[in-house]
Amino acid sequence: MVKVGVIGCGYWGPNLIRNFSKVPDCRLEAVADQKPERLASVRHLNSEMRTTTEANELVESDSIDAVVIATPISTHFDLAKACLNNGKHVFIEKPITTTSAQARELIHLAQQQHKVLMVDHTFIYSGAVRKLRQIIDSGELGEIYYYDSVRLNLGLFQHDVNVLWDLAPHDFSLLTFLLDKKAIRVTASGSSPVRWNGWKQESIAYVNVELEGRANAHFHLNWLSPVKLRRTLIGGSRKMVIYDHLDTENQVKIFDKGIEVREDLDRYKVLVQYRMGDLLCPKVDQTEALEVACKHFVHCIQTGEQPITDGQAGLRVVQLLEAAERSMRKEQRSPDIWIPDNKVVSARV
Amino acid sequence: MVKVGVIGCGYWGPNLIRNFSKVPDCRLEAVADQKPERLASVRHLNSEMRTTTEANELVESDSIDAVVIATPISTHFDLAKACLNNGKHVFIEKPITTTSAQARELIHLAQQQHKVLMVDHTFIYSGAVRKLRQIIDSGELGEIYYYDSVRLNLGLFQHDVNVLWDLAPHDFSLLTFLLDKKAIRVTASGSSPVRWNGWKQESIAYVNVELEGRANAHFHLNWLSPVKLRRTLIGGSRKMVIYDHLDTENQVKIFDKGIEVREDLDRYKVLVQYRMGDLLCPKVDQTEALEVACKHFVHCIQTGEQPITDGQAGLRVVQLLEAAERSMRKEQRSPDIWIPDNKVVSARV
Amino acid sequence: MVKVGVIGCGYWGPNLIRNFSKVPDCRLEAVADQKPERLASVRHLNSEMRTTTEANELVESDSIDAVVIATPISTHFDLAKACLNNGKHVFIEKPITTTSAQARELIHLAQQQHKVLMVDHTFIYSGAVRKLRQIIDSGELGEIYYYDSVRLNLGLFQHDVNVLWDLAPHDFSLLTFLLDKKAIRVTASGSSPVRWNGWKQESIAYVNVELEGRANAHFHLNWLSPVKLRRTLIGGSRKMVIYDHLDTENQVKIFDKGIEVREDLDRYKVLVQYRMGDLLCPKVDQTEALEVACKHFVHCIQTGEQPITDGQAGLRVVQLLEAAERSMRKEQRSPDIWIPDNKVVSARV
Amino acid sequence: MVKVGVIGCGYWGPNLIRNFSKVPDCRLEAVADQKPERLASVRHLNSEMRTTTEANELVESDSIDAVVIATPISTHFDLAKACLNNGKHVFIEKPITTTSAQARELIHLAQQQHKVLMVDHTFIYSGAVRKLRQIIDSGELGEIYYYDSVRLNLGLFQHDVNVLWDLAPHDFSLLTFLLDKKAIRVTASGSSPVRWNGWKQESIAYVNVELEGRANAHFHLNWLSPVKLRRTLIGGSRKMVIYDHLDTENQVKIFDKGIEVREDLDRYKVLVQYRMGDLLCPKVDQTEALEVACKHFVHCIQTGEQPITDGQAGLRVVQLLEAAERSMRKEQRSPDIWIPDNKVVSARV
Repeated sequence: MVKVGVIGCGYWGPNLIRNFSKVPDCRLEAVADQKPERLASVRHLNSEMRTTTEANELVESDSIDAVVIATPISTHFDLAKACLNNGKHVFIEKPITTTSAQARELIHLAQQQHKVLMVDHTFIYSGAVRKLRQIIDSGELGEIYYYDSVRLNLGLFQHDVNVLWDLAPHDFSLLTFLLDKKAIRVTASGSSPVRWNGWKQESIAYVNVELEGRANAHFHLNWLSPVKLRRTLIGGSRKMVIYDHLDTENQVKIFDKGIEVREDLDRYKVLVQYRMGDLLCPKVDQTEALEVACKHFVHCIQTGEQPITDGQAGLRVVQLLEAAERSMRKEQRSPDIWIPDNKVVSARV
Repeated sequence: MVKVGVIGCGYWGPNLIRNFSKVPDCRLEAVADQKPERLASVRHLNSEMRTTTEANELVESDSIDAVVIATPISTHFDLAKACLNNGKHVFIEKPITTTSAQARELIHLAQQQHKVLMVDHTFIYSGAVRKLRQIIDSGELGEIYYYDSVRLNLGLFQHDVNVLWDLAPHDFSLLTFLLDKKAIRVTASGSSPVRWNGWKQESIAYVNVELEGRANAHFHLNWLSPVKLRRTLIGGSRKMVIYDHLDTENQVKIFDKGIEVREDLDRYKVLVQYRMGDLLCPKVDQTEALEVACKHFVHCIQTGEQPITDGQAGLRVVQLLEAAERSMRKEQRSPDIWIPDNKVVSARV
Repeated sequence: MVKVGVIGCGYWGPNLIRNFSKVPDCRLEAVADQKPERLASVRHLNSEMRTTTEANELVESDSIDAVVIATPISTHFDLAKACLNNGKHVFIEKPITTTSAQARELIHLAQQQHKVLMVDHTFIYSGAVRKLRQIIDSGELGEIYYYDSVRLNLGLFQHDVNVLWDLAPHDFSLLTFLLDKKAIRVTASGSSPVRWNGWKQESIAYVNVELEGRANAHFHLNWLSPVKLRRTLIGGSRKMVIYDHLDTENQVKIFDKGIEVREDLDRYKVLVQYRMGDLLCPKVDQTEALEVACKHFVHCIQTGEQPITDGQAGLRVVQLLEAAERSMRKEQRSPDIWIPDNKVVSARV
Repeated sequence: MVKVGVIGCGYWGPNLIRNFSKVPDCRLEAVADQKPERLASVRHLNSEMRTTTEANELVESDSIDAVVIATPISTHFDLAKACLNNGKHVFIEKPITTTSAQARELIHLAQQQHKVLMVDHTFIYSGAVRKLRQIIDSGELGEIYYYDSVRLNLGLFQHDVNVLWDLAPHDFSLLTFLLDKKAIRVTASGSSPVRWNGWKQESIAYVNVELEGRANAHFHLNWLSPVKLRRTLIGGSRKMVIYDHLDTENQVKIFDKGIEVREDLDRYKVLVQYRMGDLLCPKVDQTEALEVACKHFVHCIQTGEQPITDGQAGLRVVQLLEAAERSMRKEQRSPDIWIPDNKVVSARV
């Protein structure tokens, strides 16, 4: 029986409580949050768990084996470090930490303490993403040409993070899980149209990640969209895939479409031909991804296996976030191609 | 009666022939193409027009008032210059020329000769885009926050242009027609996953155009997509708009949605609130855009009016293309943020 | 404080428990089900409610003011009668009873006992349906021409009811809530392609309800569809409406489209013209419908108001079910138009 | 070389002219229409064809081998009879005639004269329908359970036909082409909400066709819909298919979904289980259906083959139309299940 404590009952906390409550061989012992009203609002989810406003009670408790950290990002590192130092396994919300140095320190500490360190990159545990990984690993897409990701909504503005740190962890965890390719270079640009009282976090960001080989990944992150979109296109030399998280009936679409290069053709004539074949939407396991993740955490504690989304997976995401953030800052200082004299005006009729 | 000649009967030529054939006060006199088989294939479109393999016959003909140039981009400048020098009005395919210097020369020449110079930025003449312009001009969107454009298909690869010069003219003409804002800076990146025999044109490009004020425009151009998408999102402080060219029933969607900043709130509490209102899809005139464009050309010849998509409009598009192309080249030489030591590997289960 | 007991913890029971648990001025006292395992599975939803396998405990309990009946249809009448006779208010699942005679008896009894009798026609309490009612009542649709309803899924087969009694109560309650028109005649046909061991309930049914005036309502009910559809079209002389329950972003669409009759035209020429205007998707309240229903029940108990979906509303639905069922049976005996000699064969190529 | 004449240049005529103009081994000799303005408007489609206002010229012409009849339905029989008697092959618009007796007479005459009689059931020649037929013939759907067809638009009202005779020929030709099953019984109901000056054709109709075995076909035909829908669902015991004519990218969807009966189960427990598998959208030939049909006609003339949509196919469609029309009339006289005393009123809040 793995005894679990949860720290943080904000937006995601209730989902963690609900799911850890149904994992076999696991008992949710206690939940901590600074705000008593939040504790009150989750009590009905599990009548047997203790509630406390003192996170330290859980960190230091002898009756707890593993701590789930669902607090603001800035507190992740200190809390996780304390937990590991107190011999607890750690399940931590994404992104794992605010710097890659911190992530490395946690990875090192978990190894030393022989404890499980797992990051809640939830989507990795969804049926759709597991199916996507299977498809890519099978090689049926051929050489990967590009990865294009769009995550738009009318977003949850937060005073302490920008859209990059809020949304990109999802997509960077998907990229690094799905493709087995080095990231060579990261370029990002952000914009902050909504501002007031000194607050001017980016609410729109575009990130480009050049991958080894010829592949390229691109991410559009947007808190200001009238419609919700969560769509990833992966183009290969043989087939192409669309993963649309919100198209619940057909989350994964495999297109037997592509470009066929006719090597023997005169290069000044027709260069390429399209290949248009069937579309297949494979059946996808609809189990709630967080349930699979919670079970995986408990399983890793019991077996000593390394989690799929371990500290290294968390580190990779933070490295990409850091690189994108640096590029976004740098770009705002030293622009690229100026058009000083071109007034782009509309042609008034 | 305006007497028109068409040079070039490739992909777009038949559409021009079909539409100019039905413009009132206009007679399609002759069509030229180097390839006799192309001439044969368009002859049924208008039984009264002459056909010839000699473009010069049209350029120099006394019986022709206006020439429509629908040849490869590289030939645009010389042909248009010759036409203007021979006192012909010119209707020219997009992009107007391969350099902004050439575009400026044509503009100057047209002014000197008192001839109409019009670029075929077809979409500008569609009911949907005219409606969009109306909405934006009315101010109902509030301050424009962003412009995000996606144009994807399984594309017509061409040996002499990349995806930027093929697709972006559409989107750059829309941007400069719709928004009355200076372009401050252009950043672009491209990738060329499909290559052979030395051919390695970019088939995917992302272009970022920083506009004056806080607005930003972004373009995703892609010849390698399994699905066709032509969608522009315009986010404003009061309302947001989606223009989806392929959603024939609802090409323009106006969302009464947005972010409401509560100035009086403690800035460390809830910063913003969403506003979710109705969605309106206004009725849009479905007349074929090219038909409207052809009539506009003849109208401008008859009245001396300046065309909506005149040489200046063509120049603005070429300036953006040049800037994007330069940024794409520069970027490929001097990368931004390298991640030399981060091997982004998938976490093998 | 209204003290509530719930009888029946099958498919819908947990939703009732969850929602009654959050209604203000209401306390969920006890839950009954014959199967202890079902009681166990709902206990976490409300840690303060009693559970029992004896429904009678609730019916006869002095500490309970109102009983929620969520048991199989065949038990509705006896349970509701016992509850009313014991001075309880009754909230009962749809359809209220298996016969209109029973429904009338319950209505009479509730009046005698001065108790609230409310049927759980849940959809009536959704934001979308309340908006639809508002639109229809405003008269903006003009004269109602037709009502076409489609409810398809890969359905929950039940051994004791057919698709008509399972799905049509939803649609008949919508029809009778939305339109203020007498039903003149009901014609129905069903088919039972799935059969075994003597079971041969209809899994597909088509029902036609002729309404007073020229309006007509039609219902397609289907347990054997590969896709889920819940769509109602309402056509009026001025505007038309689509209510698509599953299109969460745009549940209600108002089309400013129609037919315009030109009375003054020669009747042998063009008879009609289309009118194509804007499409409006009004904002719809997204509160869970069942929550609104549960609150309405408690409100009616406290104020003595008649519920929107009272016994009469339940009776109207049962009358339509009975008529449709009778027509479906009759039809299977005495067919209409036979084609004895026409072998409809495909033309083999 | 087959020499063809076309009689009738209304709505469909130009499509016939355009397509017959490109069939190899075929020459479009002449076109007839009573209205000179119609002839003028099609002349540009083929500069070599003669035009005349006298249909008889074509019927009696020695230089014409085959006549295409695209006139109002009421004229089909007389024209086709005259053509066959004059030794012409006949290609005739749907429905072939207004009565089955007429259709039989034409079939007989064509046999006597050894001429081809083909009905323009265009959809049969589309890639999607040929693919559907292939799927059904392969047996992969299992036993056919139902066929549900919906054809809605804001329709072309006509003064001489109702919605049944206008739209159902499409669907009845599909049904009889796709399924090899006898039609046992036809029941139909129509409504005529739009009326004026004595005109009161049905603009909405529902038709039910009971097929041999347990299968049932149902058709919803509607001229008063704000949206255009052309969708056929075919449910089988093993798989299910959706044919959506307007979903150009995925016209045919094959769902590996169904009901699995567990014979060995206690029939009072769970009766059935769902099977949810992949969705496959096979590639579909996008050649214009009418082009395929026109070529097939010429091919049959040249080879003596029987057309896929021969007179018998036309007769089957007319038989179903007649039965549906009779049922619609009868139904309006002798209603089925009356609800004289049930005032279906909305429950006013």
